[in-house]
Amino acid sequence: MNQEPAPPVDVSLGQFQKLIRDMYFEKDQTRGVEGTFMWLMEEVGELSSALRGGTHEERVGEFADVLAWLTTIANVAGVDLADAVNQKYGSGCPGCGQFLCVCDDAEKP
Amino acid sequence: MNQEPAPPVDVSLGQFQKLIRDMYFEKDQTRGVEGTFMWLMEEVGELSSALRGGTHEERVGEFADVLAWLTTIANVAGVDLADAVNQKYGSGCPGCGQFLCVCDDAEKP
Repeated sequence: MNQEPAPPVDVSLGQFQKLIRDMYFEKDQTRGVEGTFMWLMEEVGELSSALRGGTHEERVGEFADVLAWLTTIANVAGVDLADAVNQKYGSGCPGCGQFLCVCDDAEKP
Repeated sequence: MNQEPAPPVDVSLGQFQKLIRDMYFEKDQTRGVEGTFMWLMEEVGELSSALRGGTHEERVGEFADVLAWLTTIANVAGVDLADAVNQKYGSGCPGCGQFLCVCDDAEKP
């Protein structure tokens, strides 16, 4: 009677960016960067609210939405997110170059 | 003489979240959600600026930073980003359920 939950799917940034592109790109391109940025800000506000007083499930949903809208803007701006994080963080902290950051707290990049 | 660029690394959300956790978690936990959220907002502002007037390379760097700070908050809040996007977008658009969204433009989730 007990059902095992499905194992989590650890999607890659490239796969997620393609999913969002396939799902929404035509609308996103029509709306443009400015209009899409306003949607991102709305979702950031909802994330803030969920972090202050929401349930864990609400927070999970808001993180997904912020990530989706950030990805949408990346699609419109022609930025590859996997490439972006690999360039900036793939060789260690961009501040100190270490994989366990030793930057001063005020300097965390 | 010509060097081929290395192939892009399509990191998974889980791998990236672990990278950021390993690199920064001790500081992040000490700073907490509120202080970390302010860093995220600073980076969102820099992304806005880069989208308005920056170079492509500057935009790439700012997308990476926003993603890193969003991931940092997820670490502090105990949210698994891969699980979050899989729950919300893994079965299609959360508004219409389709993999090519047919929601009304005003309703895009």
